[in-house]
Amino acid sequence: MESRSASPAQGLQGYEQALHSSESMKTKPVRAPRLHPRMRVLRGDDIALGPGKVDLLALIGETGSIREAAERMGMSYMRAWTLIKTMNACFREPLVVASRGGKERGGAMLTKTGRRALKLYRGLEVQSLKACADTWRQLRQLLTD
Amino acid sequence: MESRSASPAQGLQGYEQALHSSESMKTKPVRAPRLHPRMRVLRGDDIALGPGKVDLLALIGETGSIREAAERMGMSYMRAWTLIKTMNACFREPLVVASRGGKERGGAMLTKTGRRALKLYRGLEVQSLKACADTWRQLRQLLTD
Repeated sequence: MESRSASPAQGLQGYEQALHSSESMKTKPVRAPRLHPRMRVLRGDDIALGPGKVDLLALIGETGSIREAAERMGMSYMRAWTLIKTMNACFREPLVVASRGGKERGGAMLTKTGRRALKLYRGLEVQSLKACADTWRQLRQLLTD
Repeated sequence: MESRSASPAQGLQGYEQALHSSESMKTKPVRAPRLHPRMRVLRGDDIALGPGKVDLLALIGETGSIREAAERMGMSYMRAWTLIKTMNACFREPLVVASRGGKERGGAMLTKTGRRALKLYRGLEVQSLKACADTWRQLRQLLTD
């Protein structure tokens, strides 16, 4: 298993985090107000998809490992499995399956449905932001800089 | 102070809650998958507005009382004040002010900016849902009923 600091993807994640939390920036902090649409997909009483579950899906797709994905998100392996079990149960076909017999034990991958759900969810986020642009501009003017 | 069950607005709120959580329905539970855009407005490291803060704003506008609004949301008075302080600090003008000298001590009201922020935020929710309709239809087909 790679160490956290040695992973290029971890470095990228750190960069993205810096955009959201300016504490780690050495230059002028990024403080502009931002709108973040956190789309929640509900099925019965379950949250089928939300920002955290979708980030986990993306990282499993990227790393091929639940353990690695959980580690990058700072969550326990058990917590990641609980989220995956909920997601898989909410969809007609599972989004994540264990890939046994590969090079690495404990590997996992997104199914076709998993990749499609991830793509559609990211589409929701983009479409939401786009549709909100004008109203957000008005709301933003009420905020302090 | 009105009793909770006697308030028509509370009755309406109860109805809206039933649409989201089917437990209180006596007929066939409402189980259809739902998309809920939870818009988050960030200013620096603060969440200036989110679903909880906006519900609190709406209830203060409706009841004229922070205590009553907090009670209806099942949160402590102190917690409500903390949320209000954060909101007020994020905007150029406060969203909520205490209304002293009225009939009821501890009364509060939305400012013009508060009413405008509430209206714009609700607009974001509606516009987001509308823009997502087509992609949501596709994503929904992947979910179990």
